[in-house]
Amino acid sequence: MDFELKILGSSSATPSFERHHTAQILTVGNQINLIDCGEGTQMQLMRYKVKHQRICNIFISHLHGDHYFGLVGLLSTMHLQQRTAPINLYGPKGLADILSLQFKYGGTQLPYPINFVEVDTTVCRKIFEDKFMTVHSLPMQHRVPCCGYLFKEKEKPRHLLKGKLPEFLTPPQLVRLKWGEDIRNEQGDILVRNEVVTTHPKRSRSYAYCSDTKYKEDILPYIQGVDLLYHEATFLSDMAHRAEHTFHSTAAQAASLAQKAQVKRLLIGHFSARYKELSPLLEEAQAIFPNTNLATEGKTVSVLE
Amino acid sequence: MDFELKILGSSSATPSFERHHTAQILTVGNQINLIDCGEGTQMQLMRYKVKHQRICNIFISHLHGDHYFGLVGLLSTMHLQQRTAPINLYGPKGLADILSLQFKYGGTQLPYPINFVEVDTTVCRKIFEDKFMTVHSLPMQHRVPCCGYLFKEKEKPRHLLKGKLPEFLTPPQLVRLKWGEDIRNEQGDILVRNEVVTTHPKRSRSYAYCSDTKYKEDILPYIQGVDLLYHEATFLSDMAHRAEHTFHSTAAQAASLAQKAQVKRLLIGHFSARYKELSPLLEEAQAIFPNTNLATEGKTVSVLE
Repeated sequence: MDFELKILGSSSATPSFERHHTAQILTVGNQINLIDCGEGTQMQLMRYKVKHQRICNIFISHLHGDHYFGLVGLLSTMHLQQRTAPINLYGPKGLADILSLQFKYGGTQLPYPINFVEVDTTVCRKIFEDKFMTVHSLPMQHRVPCCGYLFKEKEKPRHLLKGKLPEFLTPPQLVRLKWGEDIRNEQGDILVRNEVVTTHPKRSRSYAYCSDTKYKEDILPYIQGVDLLYHEATFLSDMAHRAEHTFHSTAAQAASLAQKAQVKRLLIGHFSARYKELSPLLEEAQAIFPNTNLATEGKTVSVLE
Repeated sequence: MDFELKILGSSSATPSFERHHTAQILTVGNQINLIDCGEGTQMQLMRYKVKHQRICNIFISHLHGDHYFGLVGLLSTMHLQQRTAPINLYGPKGLADILSLQFKYGGTQLPYPINFVEVDTTVCRKIFEDKFMTVHSLPMQHRVPCCGYLFKEKEKPRHLLKGKLPEFLTPPQLVRLKWGEDIRNEQGDILVRNEVVTTHPKRSRSYAYCSDTKYKEDILPYIQGVDLLYHEATFLSDMAHRAEHTFHSTAAQAASLAQKAQVKRLLIGHFSARYKELSPLLEEAQAIFPNTNLATEGKTVSVLE
C-alpha cells in the first residue's frame, strides 16, 4: 500500500518565482490528503499530475496566507468541475467564515458538501479516523493559532502462512488469526496457536507535519520515532534571533528535534525567500541529523512498509 | 508617454496549466494599474518582471474567484515587503469585507493604507481622476454585480512651435498657449494668436476593459472609438446558448461590439479551458473585426500617441 508524500510547494511567506507556497499531498493507500494549500496549489496539482477530484481530506495548519490562500480557488474549481463527492476540511477557527463569505459574494452554491471540522490547535487530539489511518492535531507555537498534523497508519493484520493453516479453518476464524487471536474449541483449548500460523504484520507508517512553529520540544512525545518528519526551517542559525521573533525555526532546530525524536527521516522546508541557494540550510541540518532532505517542489518521498 | 497594456492571464474560470486567470497591467505614464487579480497574479508579475511595488491602483471587476482570488496574496506580499505607499482599490461591494476578514484571522496589520472605493457596477460613472487619466466604471451584465473599466488619458497640452514664439512671452503665458488660449494685451487685443504658434496636442488615448459580460450593446456610447478594447470571448458561436446562459460572450459577439463601437483594436480573452487551440476564437472574431488579437499571457500592446 502506498504511503507517499509529494511536495507541491515549500516557500515561506514571500513567494519567489521558482518556489511556491506550502502545499503537500500525502497518499495513504488510495486516499489522497492535501496538507496546506498556498496560492497556486491548483496549478501545482496540474503540474505534478495530481487529480484534485481524488482529494478527500484537506488539512490546513493556520490562517497565514502562504498556507491557505489557494484553498478557495481549488474548492471553486472542484465546483466548476461538478464534484459531488464530499470533502473533509480540517482547520482552525475562521476558515469556514472566510470561505462562506467568498462563496456568498461569488454567488457560489457548491454541488458537493464540505464537512468542516474546526481544529483546536492547542492540543494533540485525534481528529480523523478511517479504516486505514488516524490523524492527530499537533500544537504548534506560532503568531496565530496553528497546528501540525500527525498521520499514522492503523495497525495492520498479521500475515497468514498459507502452508501452515489447517484446512478446517472458516473465514471468520482466518480473520481472527489475522488480528492476533488463537483459535480455540468450545472448551477453550487452543486448536491453532496464532504464532505458529502467522507472522508479524507489516508495520504501520507515520508522518508528522510541523509548520509553522518556533522550536518546541513539548511535541517530542507525539512525533517520537515517526518514519518521516517535515519540519519548517525558515532560517539558518545565524538568524536564530529572527526565527525566535517571528515564531519560526532554524534548520539546526528542525534537525535537533528530529534527532531527539529519533525519527527515521527529516524533510525541511518553508524556506525564506532570502535563500536563493538552499544547500546551506541542508548542510546545517545534516550536520545534526544526517538523514535530512530538502522539501523541494515535485519531490516525492515514499515510506516503505 | 507610455500607454501600454500587458496581459498576465486570460483564462476563464477553470484554469489550465498554461493559462492563468485574468489579470492585466495598464501603464499610463509612470502609473501602474492592475486590472483584476486572479489566483497566481503575484507570480505572474514576477514572471513578467512587473514590480508590484509600483502598482498604485487596482481595479477589480467582480467577485468571481478567477478575477480576484490573487488579490489578498498580492496585498499580503506588499505587506511583507514593507510597502508604505497607499494603494487605491476599486471593486464591488463585499471586497473590503472579504479582505478584512482574511487579514483579521491572519493577524495582519498592513503597514500601508488601502483606499477602498466601492464601485456601483450598474452605472457608467467617473471613479478616478488624476492629472494623467480618468477611469469610469462600465456596467457589465453578469451573474453577480460586475463592471468593466474605461481608462482615458486626459486632454494634453498643445505643441509649442519654438521657432515661432515671440521672445517676450513669459512662462505663464507659454502655459496658457499650451492649453489653447491666445495672448492678449490689457485692452484685449490679440498679441499672439494660438493657432500661429502651436499645433494640435497629441491625442488622448483610451482603453476599455469589458469582462465578464453577456453581449450588451448599451455600453456602445461609452466605448465608442476607443483605441483598444478588451472584451471577453469565453466561447465560440456554436456555444452561443451556453454563453447566454452563463452571462458570457462569444468571439463573434466581442467582434461585433468592436465593429459597432468603431474601436481601433480589439483584444479577446477569458477563454474557456475547453479550447486548447485558440485560433478558432481568433478567426471567428477576425471575420467580423479584422484588427483583433488574442490576449495571451505575456502579450504587450502599446497604444501610440
